[in-house]
Amino acid sequence: MRKIEICVSPELIHLYETKGKNVVIVDIFRATSTMMAALANGVESITPIMDLETCRAFASKGYTIAGERNGLKAEGFELGNSPLAYLNHAFAGKKIAMTTTNGTLAIEKTKIDANLVLLGAFVNLKATAKYLIGQTEDVLILCAGWKGKFNLEDSLYAGALVSSLHPNFDTDCDSAIALKSLYESNSHRLQIFLGQASHAKRLQNHNIEADIDFCLSIDMYDIVGILSGEELIAKHS
Amino acid sequence: MRKIEICVSPELIHLYETKGKNVVIVDIFRATSTMMAALANGVESITPIMDLETCRAFASKGYTIAGERNGLKAEGFELGNSPLAYLNHAFAGKKIAMTTTNGTLAIEKTKIDANLVLLGAFVNLKATAKYLIGQTEDVLILCAGWKGKFNLEDSLYAGALVSSLHPNFDTDCDSAIALKSLYESNSHRLQIFLGQASHAKRLQNHNIEADIDFCLSIDMYDIVGILSGEELIAKHS
Repeated sequence: MRKIEICVSPELIHLYETKGKNVVIVDIFRATSTMMAALANGVESITPIMDLETCRAFASKGYTIAGERNGLKAEGFELGNSPLAYLNHAFAGKKIAMTTTNGTLAIEKTKIDANLVLLGAFVNLKATAKYLIGQTEDVLILCAGWKGKFNLEDSLYAGALVSSLHPNFDTDCDSAIALKSLYESNSHRLQIFLGQASHAKRLQNHNIEADIDFCLSIDMYDIVGILSGEELIAKHS
Repeated sequence: MRKIEICVSPELIHLYETKGKNVVIVDIFRATSTMMAALANGVESITPIMDLETCRAFASKGYTIAGERNGLKAEGFELGNSPLAYLNHAFAGKKIAMTTTNGTLAIEKTKIDANLVLLGAFVNLKATAKYLIGQTEDVLILCAGWKGKFNLEDSLYAGALVSSLHPNFDTDCDSAIALKSLYESNSHRLQIFLGQASHAKRLQNHNIEADIDFCLSIDMYDIVGILSGEELIAKHS
């Protein structure tokens, strides 16, 4: 039976085999949620980029550039990391170049030898689960975390995805067993439980509660976000 | 208020401040449980050692040597890593030199600048909590994990200790929030839940279910295990 694993931090990814697996990158607050909002609202593609300079240079190639560091919009960028900016098809048809504190690093670390790289977010949880069930490969969920540390929102999503894939996938991965249980015992109070998370508190300090609410909305979209070459694009599940 | 954090793997310890903290090292299956069994049964001291060769050399200095790799007794060692070997005061009065796959590494990584290094085990959970509450320092729990990965039994103990320290300690650490919840929702079925753990399965393959049962017994001992110089010794809580 196909296997599923969770890696709770990009700093532990060297301990996992990524080759040939379908890897789901999770950065709930807010990179992967924002990317899904963009793709669901007609953005043509998103090119994830590691550093601010390289990303900024994409402006001259006709890209809309989005840059975030430590929760705030980076200087000289048109967009930060808020999913709300993409609603109502505000950037439909555009190509976006995006760099974020944690999310783009996680994509970078796995894209070389993964079979597929997908975006994990609550906003399209069921669609991603359905898509993965339709494939034949093992799944590795990589939580972007916060500067290398375990974080609550990415871990809960990872647990939610393991729960959604059950019983189509089997696991002997302790983090998958633990986080499936954590999600299932807290799914009825996700917003309250996540209100304790360190990252939610950081975002509240920036007055972006609406972003948090958006990122914790489940199953708004029925598409998946998937890496094709160097670009993330939408695909129907 | 004093703070408590959990680091889920020795490979993430560089992300945490250890200086001046009381650090609790956790390696439930079986290093820290075995060390507590030894100390509670009259062993004078345990010297944790990183490598097999150095540990073996302690035999000529009058130490009883204990060595484990990958769950099995290492060649040429009198003892492996079973807590049962120390029961009934079998090694009372002896000095033990011990090396294990994960546990001794975790001690090594934190002993330099921690205020205190303590052994975390279910067999003396309450005693350790009581001792930490009586001190003034912040607490960092370091899970030894399995070869760098998150593991279920160490994580559940870490959650149990956070739960036991509540409300004397505060936390803004996501792994502490997550694992406290994980422990509290599974404490009524700890053995069943942990039966799924990858390490428990490895130990079952070695026919040492009795070791597992021992390591999951809560509050058998009312002493703490604490590093004093290069030796772990017993102290009353």
